Amino acid sequence: MSVRLATSLETTAPNPAPEFSQAVSGLRALLADDLGEVNKEILSRMESAVPLIPEIAGHLVNAGGKRIRPMLTLAAARAFSYDGDDHIKLAAAVELIHGATLLHDDVVDGSHLRRGEQTANVIWGNKESVLVGDYIFSRAFELMVAAGDLRVLQVLSHASGVIAQGEVLQLTTQKNIATSIDTYIEVVEAKTAALFAGASHAGAIITDADTKAEEALRDYGLNFGVAYQLIDDALDYAGFDDDLGKNVGDDFREGKMTLPVVYAIARAQPDEKAFWRRVITEGRQNDADFEQAVALMKRDDAIVDTIVCAKQYAERALFELAKAPDSDYASALSDLVTTSLSRIA
Amino acid sequence: MSVRLATSLETTAPNPAPEFSQAVSGLRALLADDLGEVNKEILSRMESAVPLIPEIAGHLVNAGGKRIRPMLTLAAARAFSYDGDDHIKLAAAVELIHGATLLHDDVVDGSHLRRGEQTANVIWGNKESVLVGDYIFSRAFELMVAAGDLRVLQVLSHASGVIAQGEVLQLTTQKNIATSIDTYIEVVEAKTAALFAGASHAGAIITDADTKAEEALRDYGLNFGVAYQLIDDALDYAGFDDDLGKNVGDDFREGKMTLPVVYAIARAQPDEKAFWRRVITEGRQNDADFEQAVALMKRDDAIVDTIVCAKQYAERALFELAKAPDSDYASALSDLVTTSLSRIA
Repeated sequence: MSVRLATSLETTAPNPAPEFSQAVSGLRALLADDLGEVNKEILSRMESAVPLIPEIAGHLVNAGGKRIRPMLTLAAARAFSYDGDDHIKLAAAVELIHGATLLHDDVVDGSHLRRGEQTANVIWGNKESVLVGDYIFSRAFELMVAAGDLRVLQVLSHASGVIAQGEVLQLTTQKNIATSIDTYIEVVEAKTAALFAGASHAGAIITDADTKAEEALRDYGLNFGVAYQLIDDALDYAGFDDDLGKNVGDDFREGKMTLPVVYAIARAQPDEKAFWRRVITEGRQNDADFEQAVALMKRDDAIVDTIVCAKQYAERALFELAKAPDSDYASALSDLVTTSLSRIA
Repeated sequence: MSVRLATSLETTAPNPAPEFSQAVSGLRALLADDLGEVNKEILSRMESAVPLIPEIAGHLVNAGGKRIRPMLTLAAARAFSYDGDDHIKLAAAVELIHGATLLHDDVVDGSHLRRGEQTANVIWGNKESVLVGDYIFSRAFELMVAAGDLRVLQVLSHASGVIAQGEVLQLTTQKNIATSIDTYIEVVEAKTAALFAGASHAGAIITDADTKAEEALRDYGLNFGVAYQLIDDALDYAGFDDDLGKNVGDDFREGKMTLPVVYAIARAQPDEKAFWRRVITEGRQNDADFEQAVALMKRDDAIVDTIVCAKQYAERALFELAKAPDSDYASALSDLVTTSLSRIA
């Protein structure tokens, strides 16, 4: 399947996200029964005699993420005709690992808004978010252990370590305008793509698929994850609040070194370096700076090339996925990648 | 073996801790080779291309905790004549879980000093401590998975969840002078004793010991853990900075509801409730308040009765341990409990 997306910003429609939303909905419909079980599993694991735990977990779950990661696990298993029920536990575990990460991320970034809702650290506090994040993370491991597959445990515990390492690496790149493309891609592979990879890999491992097929699903997830994050990065400079569930420009205001910024700085005129140093390294920003940053990015194709880069990863994801047998699930996983690029156009 | 400790504060020697230190040293000598392997395992697992990770982990490891928890795992395994090497991985995992918990605790409590050293959150920052804590926690799980025993994974992943839940519960009791003895014991069983229990339980599980023996080691750890924490609580009001590796009165200044405070408030005269409300709930303290709190505690036997309570848990720990076969390891585990009470006298 080819990637159909134009890479020019000039064709931008006001809100191109619906195509991706439809692909998500398509996959969700296909997995409706499984997702219902995953929800039940998550809610039962978040029950606790300490009321703060279900409160914060409920806020996280009800804020209604797109559930892409658990769907990768479910669809990968179904794509190889899996008919057991361990995929439910593993999908729930994957979503809980993601949720725990979000709680800690929001503390670390001092974020106020996620998916259009106030973050848990704003509502309940940083301490509460750190500790409930730890609780959710532990429960995710308990779920994986309950599924009882040591290879899956190896894959997902390793992924968790890689995610945390990626977050630490990102912290060291923050406000650092010397961050290279390679380092930034390393951050993305770790903090985002490792869980996408672990999710689809785990789904394949519990089936009778052979090693090559398992690895194909892992690499599908890894490459899709990078593409997905890069599009997110581009949306922070060229998207709409509605698509992001956060405010456009949040990355910029936090001084995050994302690919559009890395490209823009690499291509800046000597006198423009001072602008980037002031707004990113020193964090001294005024109201006009975001617009100025976007103007420089557009002039130097920093956003377009971020999308081109995302497209390359997306193509690789589809190449790997093509090794799986034809099925409705494989088609839906393919649509997810293709349309993820259409979140920005 | 009987618990030899007097429970009166009147007999207090200037620094009674050496007896406990000797017991720790005795166990350490017995496990010297194993502990060397545990150290190697920890250091190799903390290697990372992201320098901040080995820096913070190294600080945590070198600050030189007493390593009681990993010694419980090692000694429990050796007490049942274990001669494999999974106990090394599990002991390392237990110490890493403990280390991750300390990093997060210090962020949550805003602590500045631990084991006489500046805390990681002071040296590197809160964000760094949260994320490196997550990394260490994930690596601990990877180690457990490498040991490959699903029952141990179940025990230790469950313990991790219980610890986090205990921390959340403690957060809700903080500054709350209505906290009951039962609730506080629940906090201690979760935040401290669950890992002591998991550590000794895991050590027994990997041996050929029968279920009753495994449970005895688990209950030894659980009861020892409660005793150990209660003595720590008492030391905050009646100890010396040197014994604690933190400052006497830290719990008081943070408004922590520990057993001496719970007892003191339960026994306070009506007009003294206002004192406790001001210093604990409202957190308005002046220089004379700590001395006043200790005076009230002494008058009403709040510290003595905390030690009596610790002694009861210690006796239960020894009762459970007596079910294990006689060995140098079992004797050393017994000495640890007996002398832990001598940290305060």
